[in-house]
Amino acid sequence: MTHLNLSTKFNERLFDMDFMNFGHSISLIHHHLEEVEDELTGWLKQPLNITAEEVDEIHNLSDEIKENADVLLVIGIGGSYLGAKAVQEALAPNFTKKENGIEVLFVGHNLSGSYMKRLVESLHNRDFYVNVISKSGTTLETSIAFRVLRHYSIERYGQNAKNRIIVTTDSEKGLLKEIALAQGYRMLDIPSNIGGRYSLLTPVGLLPISVAGINITEILRGACQAVIDLNEEDLEKNEAYRYAVLRYELYSRGYQVELLASFEPCLSYIHEWWKQLFGESEGKEKKGLFPASVNYSTDLHSLGQYVQEGNPLLFETFLSFKHLSEDCHLPFNELDDDQLNYLSHRSFNDINHISEQGTVLAHFEGGVPIIQIELERLDAFHIGYLLYFFMKACAISAYLQDVNPFDQPGVEAYKTKIRDLLNEKTIVS
Amino acid sequence: MTHLNLSTKFNERLFDMDFMNFGHSISLIHHHLEEVEDELTGWLKQPLNITAEEVDEIHNLSDEIKENADVLLVIGIGGSYLGAKAVQEALAPNFTKKENGIEVLFVGHNLSGSYMKRLVESLHNRDFYVNVISKSGTTLETSIAFRVLRHYSIERYGQNAKNRIIVTTDSEKGLLKEIALAQGYRMLDIPSNIGGRYSLLTPVGLLPISVAGINITEILRGACQAVIDLNEEDLEKNEAYRYAVLRYELYSRGYQVELLASFEPCLSYIHEWWKQLFGESEGKEKKGLFPASVNYSTDLHSLGQYVQEGNPLLFETFLSFKHLSEDCHLPFNELDDDQLNYLSHRSFNDINHISEQGTVLAHFEGGVPIIQIELERLDAFHIGYLLYFFMKACAISAYLQDVNPFDQPGVEAYKTKIRDLLNEKTIVS
Repeated sequence: MTHLNLSTKFNERLFDMDFMNFGHSISLIHHHLEEVEDELTGWLKQPLNITAEEVDEIHNLSDEIKENADVLLVIGIGGSYLGAKAVQEALAPNFTKKENGIEVLFVGHNLSGSYMKRLVESLHNRDFYVNVISKSGTTLETSIAFRVLRHYSIERYGQNAKNRIIVTTDSEKGLLKEIALAQGYRMLDIPSNIGGRYSLLTPVGLLPISVAGINITEILRGACQAVIDLNEEDLEKNEAYRYAVLRYELYSRGYQVELLASFEPCLSYIHEWWKQLFGESEGKEKKGLFPASVNYSTDLHSLGQYVQEGNPLLFETFLSFKHLSEDCHLPFNELDDDQLNYLSHRSFNDINHISEQGTVLAHFEGGVPIIQIELERLDAFHIGYLLYFFMKACAISAYLQDVNPFDQPGVEAYKTKIRDLLNEKTIVS
Repeated sequence: MTHLNLSTKFNERLFDMDFMNFGHSISLIHHHLEEVEDELTGWLKQPLNITAEEVDEIHNLSDEIKENADVLLVIGIGGSYLGAKAVQEALAPNFTKKENGIEVLFVGHNLSGSYMKRLVESLHNRDFYVNVISKSGTTLETSIAFRVLRHYSIERYGQNAKNRIIVTTDSEKGLLKEIALAQGYRMLDIPSNIGGRYSLLTPVGLLPISVAGINITEILRGACQAVIDLNEEDLEKNEAYRYAVLRYELYSRGYQVELLASFEPCLSYIHEWWKQLFGESEGKEKKGLFPASVNYSTDLHSLGQYVQEGNPLLFETFLSFKHLSEDCHLPFNELDDDQLNYLSHRSFNDINHISEQGTVLAHFEGGVPIIQIELERLDAFHIGYLLYFFMKACAISAYLQDVNPFDQPGVEAYKTKIRDLLNEKTIVS
């Protein structure tokens, strides 16, 4: 059984591509990843290494939160935000009441005064828990939001506030760990050898995802299956390696933007998570595909024109799921004044799927190289599988470009500037 | 008084740029726009041309909807969706109850069965109106959603359903107009000489915006001011023309991506609207800057690394507002265990603003050319001004690239494919 299928539609310029040219490089990278332990590669085996006790601890905390709160506030940014947000949107989206979970709100992922003010106002009649997440423990946005929400928690719950605050941080060090120890907040560990954007399958992602009512055992089961399937050294049998090689080859041939496209709106934060993963892993040393995304068919009426006929600097990667659990049928209308009766035995998902096929054909004929990633079913198992697939492919892809997939030296530049400006203005004022 | 200020931070490669080289071209385009009437240029004077009667009609309808419904369903895609969504997010964002408006939900901007099913389920205990918007009257996504919601409206309201459906379509022709006439739905006109992505200041945008509780008179007043300010022929005195020339010059020098950046999360749909406007207007004949966007500081922890040190194919346009109406202060903490007391007399917006300055400096020093667009205040007047500014700049910019700003020939390609596939599969099945 295949859990994920990778296919392509390329024009003649790429027909001659020989995967086997990459066999040797891929094999070297494969063994390098297996062997390095000084790098941030803990995520590679994390789905296998996480213990039943750790999962139980998350389940117990999650049950406690769901019982005692109407909303969980997750304070985090970047890798401490996007993974949980992505899975929640994909599997427990808008409009209906969550059946097995409560509302999870994200905060500390921006510095907007208006956002924070309105968030706090929305809490006045609701009980809440706080889960603050930061690997380093000193991220500016996270620390500031945590100060406000600690303050508000004490206003609301007094001495009991500390029982409603969960700290997820580095297992070994950091300011947040010190605060938690001193205040008696409960802690969940982020393994030291797993970096932010690869940390989704640790408590960073798992606690918020579980509180949202999603089955994290299934997420982990899917990821474990991916660990096994995608550890195959033979490039032709490893979809993650093939994806890495394909995008590297397109990049080498002058394509500069990879556009991740889905036809299901609930996948839009999977795109955002993917953008961080690839952008931060590969965008260094003046290299890297620029990762962008579109939500079709919405964006067919926006960026569609550009993709079809604009500057040919991009290729498209379509992400789709064969089976979706919910659907809606087009009713029959005797009048047929909208001339849609020829579709009235069809469902939305059916029409949407045809719409995807038509778009792939049109863009392909317009000269856009196409990669298609298809999974069986939009459920927790396959989302776990997909996320691990992308992480593995990203590490390989960055190594092919000869950059380190696990650092982000450029992020320091703006942090230093901001720190200088804040200190300077503070001294003057 | 300046309502919008445009400034730049460029490195030496661009220091020698002489705006006056463009004086003649700009003057030609300026007069061309003034004179053509056969093209879709009705939006140019629309803020001045809309009559008090038309605005009254929208206000009356809006009052009626707010009185009789808990939610307005807006069915539309592309230009019939993004403008209203963008203004609503910017001026009446999440979390708090709208004071002067009701909830406005968008639908028909995707083909997801799950989205439609959950939307309809969420209506069971709420009263609603429907506003279906399509210039052509035959857009697939819109027509399908309208069929489902007409059907549901009749289930819910019987004979009275027709009083709860408002049709916004071309003033002269189209299938939707015929349906509305036959069924007795009330109609609002989209002037024939205004295309989808330029239609925000017609009933397309104005009715949903008004129902969301936003003052459309102020939006129009801002746009009228922009019509006057930005009709100045002298390039150096016209910020819209300067923006068009700057981005064209950057494009000519090899930059391929324009990244629109804001530090206020409520502006994210302004970005989406801008992407359609520029992408669909310029992305043709294998030309055009690829329009992308980031929401900082969220995306500093995602695409920030790429912007700072990745492939140098992009320049950044920062959009910001000097004064915001809401803010939140960082409380003092005696313990100072998070080491933030040096900031405790500051507000979020203040720190956010410094964060923007630091980011501009860091990216500039990293070699990224920067354009900064700043407006006085985040309110209806300045949003009206900004949207007109972008439309005017976009038309000029497309003409500089020698493409037609008002057509979208590439959108037909996928529509044809989908139509063929739908017909084919229907015949077979």
